[in-house]
Amino acid sequence: MSERLQVMGIGGNENGCAVIAGPCAIESKMITDRIADSLKRCGVRYLRGGAFKPRTNPKEFQGMRKAGIEILREIGDKYQMVVVTEIVDTEHIPMFEELVDIIQVGAKNCFNYELLKKLGKCKKPVMLKRGASAKVSEWLMAADYIRHGGNENVILCERGIRSFEDSTRFTLDISSVQVVKELSKLPVVVDPSHAAGRRSLVRSMTLAAVAAGADGVMVEVHEVPSESMVDAEQALDMLEFSKLVEDVELIREVRNVRGT
Amino acid sequence: MSERLQVMGIGGNENGCAVIAGPCAIESKMITDRIADSLKRCGVRYLRGGAFKPRTNPKEFQGMRKAGIEILREIGDKYQMVVVTEIVDTEHIPMFEELVDIIQVGAKNCFNYELLKKLGKCKKPVMLKRGASAKVSEWLMAADYIRHGGNENVILCERGIRSFEDSTRFTLDISSVQVVKELSKLPVVVDPSHAAGRRSLVRSMTLAAVAAGADGVMVEVHEVPSESMVDAEQALDMLEFSKLVEDVELIREVRNVRGT
Amino acid sequence: MSERLQVMGIGGNENGCAVIAGPCAIESKMITDRIADSLKRCGVRYLRGGAFKPRTNPKEFQGMRKAGIEILREIGDKYQMVVVTEIVDTEHIPMFEELVDIIQVGAKNCFNYELLKKLGKCKKPVMLKRGASAKVSEWLMAADYIRHGGNENVILCERGIRSFEDSTRFTLDISSVQVVKELSKLPVVVDPSHAAGRRSLVRSMTLAAVAAGADGVMVEVHEVPSESMVDAEQALDMLEFSKLVEDVELIREVRNVRGT
Amino acid sequence: MSERLQVMGIGGNENGCAVIAGPCAIESKMITDRIADSLKRCGVRYLRGGAFKPRTNPKEFQGMRKAGIEILREIGDKYQMVVVTEIVDTEHIPMFEELVDIIQVGAKNCFNYELLKKLGKCKKPVMLKRGASAKVSEWLMAADYIRHGGNENVILCERGIRSFEDSTRFTLDISSVQVVKELSKLPVVVDPSHAAGRRSLVRSMTLAAVAAGADGVMVEVHEVPSESMVDAEQALDMLEFSKLVEDVELIREVRNVRGT
Repeated sequence: MSERLQVMGIGGNENGCAVIAGPCAIESKMITDRIADSLKRCGVRYLRGGAFKPRTNPKEFQGMRKAGIEILREIGDKYQMVVVTEIVDTEHIPMFEELVDIIQVGAKNCFNYELLKKLGKCKKPVMLKRGASAKVSEWLMAADYIRHGGNENVILCERGIRSFEDSTRFTLDISSVQVVKELSKLPVVVDPSHAAGRRSLVRSMTLAAVAAGADGVMVEVHEVPSESMVDAEQALDMLEFSKLVEDVELIREVRNVRGT
Repeated sequence: MSERLQVMGIGGNENGCAVIAGPCAIESKMITDRIADSLKRCGVRYLRGGAFKPRTNPKEFQGMRKAGIEILREIGDKYQMVVVTEIVDTEHIPMFEELVDIIQVGAKNCFNYELLKKLGKCKKPVMLKRGASAKVSEWLMAADYIRHGGNENVILCERGIRSFEDSTRFTLDISSVQVVKELSKLPVVVDPSHAAGRRSLVRSMTLAAVAAGADGVMVEVHEVPSESMVDAEQALDMLEFSKLVEDVELIREVRNVRGT
Repeated sequence: MSERLQVMGIGGNENGCAVIAGPCAIESKMITDRIADSLKRCGVRYLRGGAFKPRTNPKEFQGMRKAGIEILREIGDKYQMVVVTEIVDTEHIPMFEELVDIIQVGAKNCFNYELLKKLGKCKKPVMLKRGASAKVSEWLMAADYIRHGGNENVILCERGIRSFEDSTRFTLDISSVQVVKELSKLPVVVDPSHAAGRRSLVRSMTLAAVAAGADGVMVEVHEVPSESMVDAEQALDMLEFSKLVEDVELIREVRNVRGT
Repeated sequence: MSERLQVMGIGGNENGCAVIAGPCAIESKMITDRIADSLKRCGVRYLRGGAFKPRTNPKEFQGMRKAGIEILREIGDKYQMVVVTEIVDTEHIPMFEELVDIIQVGAKNCFNYELLKKLGKCKKPVMLKRGASAKVSEWLMAADYIRHGGNENVILCERGIRSFEDSTRFTLDISSVQVVKELSKLPVVVDPSHAAGRRSLVRSMTLAAVAAGADGVMVEVHEVPSESMVDAEQALDMLEFSKLVEDVELIREVRNVRGT
C-alpha cells in the first residue's frame, strides 16, 4: 500500500482514529471550558467549536467571531488540546494563523477558491469539508488549490451531500472514505453530526465511518444539547459521547488487527 | 427498545448479522454449485443469484429465467441454504412461491405496486430493495403494500440511491439503516455491491453497514469475478470474501457486546 | 434535419404541439363527460384520465380500475377523442389493447422491463414516462425494450426527476426535450402538472415546454379542482386551461415560423 | 399582482426580457471589442465576461483578473453597455465598485456569506447565481444576506442544480422562475449556457426560460467558439446568437400580450 499522509496526528499508516469533538458554536468561556474538560477526560485531543458561523438564515446567530476564537485558543491551551475552527473570509487568515491549530473550510466555502489559494500560503493545516454539491473529484481538486500554494497539510472531511432524501439533513456518502483513499494520500475524516441533523442517528453513522476506514470522526457534543444555540438537535450529551468514544476504539481495533 | 421482527433468521433483537452471498446471475449449474460449496464452507447460509435480470440495456443477457430458478433450488437443497432471487413479473409468482425461499423485489420494481400487492397474498418472505429514487418514507409505504395483503415477512434492503456523485454507481445511504430502525420493526439488510459498482469498495462499505447496525449484508461473489457474465467489476473472489465474513463477525461482536 | 417519427398525430416534422388533458383520476362517468365536453370545446383531441392509480400510500384511492377504463372508452367515443391511460400490470394488457388508444407507462414502472417487453408485442402506441431516477440514456433504453418487441409507436414523456429541490414535487428537466431530440426520433411530450405539484406553476412550466420544442404537453384539468380525488392541488380549472391552450398555440407558432 | 422590482432595467412589471451576453472569459481587448460590437448590433445592452474565473481545476486558466476588468470597463464605455462580471474575493470589492456595473456572485460563492454581507454595503447591483446545491429557499436567504446590508438591488440568476442526470452539466430548474416570482419581488434571470454545457441545447433552453417568464437570459457567445479559452463547447457563434435574440423577442411578445 502507498504511504498515506499524516497531518497533526490524523491519518498516516498507523491507523489510529482521531476523535474531534466539541460544540457546534462557541457560546461562552464557561461552557467551552466545561465541555473541554469533559472531552479531555474521555481522552479526546481535538477540540472543535465554531466562532464564525455561516448560517443559512441571515437572521440567525452568526457566532462570537473573534471573541470565540480567543476563547477557543485559551481553552485549547488550558487543556492542551488541538483546536479546530472554521474560517469564512480571506481577511481573517492572519488571526487564524496565529490562534488556530487546524483551520477548517466549511462545506459552503469548498469552492471559494480565493480562500483556498490563500490558505495554500498559510503555515497551519487545513481541514477541507466536502461541498454539498461536490463530486469527490471536485473536492480533491479543491484540495489541490491549497496544496498548489505549498501547503500539503490538508485533511479532507466528508459531511454529506445533497440528495432527495429528506430524513437526514444531508446524505452521508460513506463510500467516499474508500474512494478518497484510492485517489489521494490525504487523511479523511467524517462528520456524521451535520449529515444526520439529529442525535439519534449519530452513533450509527459514526461507527459506520470508523468501520469504513475513516482516519477520524468529528462529532458535536454539548453539556446540555437542548440549550445549544446552534444545531441543538444534533449534539450528543457527554454520556452518549463517552460511550461512543469507547465504541469507536473497539471498531478501530478490529480494523487495525485485520488490516486496512 | 421495541421488539424487532425476525424474518427467516434475519433481524430480531438477537443482533446476528446475516450474510447473503452469491453470483449476480446464475450462469450454470456447475458454477453455482462451486460457489455455493465455497460459501457454505465460509459459514454462509443464504445463497443469492439472479435468474430474471432486469438489465438497463435490452441487448444484454437477461438471465437464465426459469432454468436459473431451478438450478438455484437444486443447489440450495444440496447445501441446505436459503435461496434468494429476484422476481420481475406478477405471472411468475406461483413459480417463485414453489421454488424460492425469499423472493426479492429489485430496486427497479420497488414502486411496481401490483407486484407488491400480489406478493402480499404470497406465503414466502419478500426482500424489498429500495428504489433508486425512493425516500425512506416511500420505501416503507411500498413495504406496506406487501404487508397490507397479509404478508408481514418483509425484509428491507438498502442498495444505494441516485445522486450526482459518479465515483460509485449509486450512493449508499448508510444513515437509512438507523432511520429505518426508528420507523419500522422490519429487518434491514444492506447491499454494498450494487451501490459500489467495483470490488475495491465493497469491504469498506460492508463493514460500514455492519457497524451502522444492519441486520444483514448481501454481497456478490464469484469464483472468477472477471468471468462473471453480469456486473463482473463488483464481485469479490472467494479469498476476499472469506476474509470479509470474518471481519463482519468481529464488527458485529463489538455491536453486540456494546448494545444497539 | 433527420426525419422524426409521428405517433397518433404527436411528433413528426410538422411541428404541431399536441395537448393531452383530463383529470388525474377517472372519478365518475358524469364528471368525465363534463370535462371531456369542455376539453373538446377548447379543441383538445387527447383525453387522459387514470383508472389504475399507483399511489405511494397503499391506503389512498387506487382508482376505479376496469370500470374507469370503460368510462374513458365510452366518453372517448362520444367526443371522438384519443384516450390515454396508465397500465400497471402485465395481466391487463388485453383489456388495454381493446379499450385504450395510447397506453401510458407511468414513471414508477419505467424500469418494469417485463411490462415493457410485453407492450412491445402490443398493437397500441405506448407513452413511456421517464422514471424519477432515470437518466435520459436509461429512459431511451427502456423505450428500446418496447421497440425491440416490434412496437415502434413509442411516445416519450418527461415528467420531472428527483432532486434535492423541494419547492416542487419533482424537478422538470426541461433540457431533456432537446437532448432526446438529438438522440432519438421518438416524439417527446412534457407533463408539467406532476412535476409542479401545484397549479400556480403549471402555466409557466407548460409554456417553457412548448418553447423548448416539446411535441406535446399533458396537463391535468378538473371541473372543480378542489374536489378532485387525486392530486387536487395541481389540476387547472377550465378557465385557466382554455387560456393556456391559446398560449400554447401562440408559442408554438413562433417556433414553427422560426424553424426548430 | 404585487409590484416587482426593477434593477438596472431588468425585471419590474413592464415585462421586457433583458439579454446579457458575452464570452465566458475576457481573453483580450481585441476579441472583447469585436464581440461587443456584434452584440451591440444585435441590440444587446448588457455585456458579460469573466475576469476572475473560479475554475474547478487549479491548473486551468484563472482569468485575466484585474486586467480583464479594465478591458471590460473600457469596452463597456465604448459601446455604452452595462457590464456584468464575477467577483470571487471580498478584497476586490473596491475595484468592482469602481469599474463594474453589475457585480456577479457565482454559483460557487452563493453561500460565501462574508462576501454577500460586504456586497450588502456596496452601491452596485449584485447578480446572485444560485448555488448548485441551493434550494430556492436557501438561495433567497443568501439574497437576504445582501439585502440586509442595505443593498436591495439584487438580481437572481438560475443556472442549474446538481442532479444525477449527466447529459447536461447541471439540471436547469425551469420551475424556479415561477417559484421565485411567487416568493420574491426580485428580478430573475436564467443562464442556460452553464447548465447545458454544449451549444446545441442553448436555444431550446433559452426559449424555455423566456416562456417560463424569466426577466432576462444570460448567454455565452464568442466570435469563434471553438477558440474560446474557457467552456468552448457551450458558446454560441454570432449567427446563432442573432437569430436567438429575435426568437427571444417573439416569445416575450406572446407573454406580454397574454399577460404574465
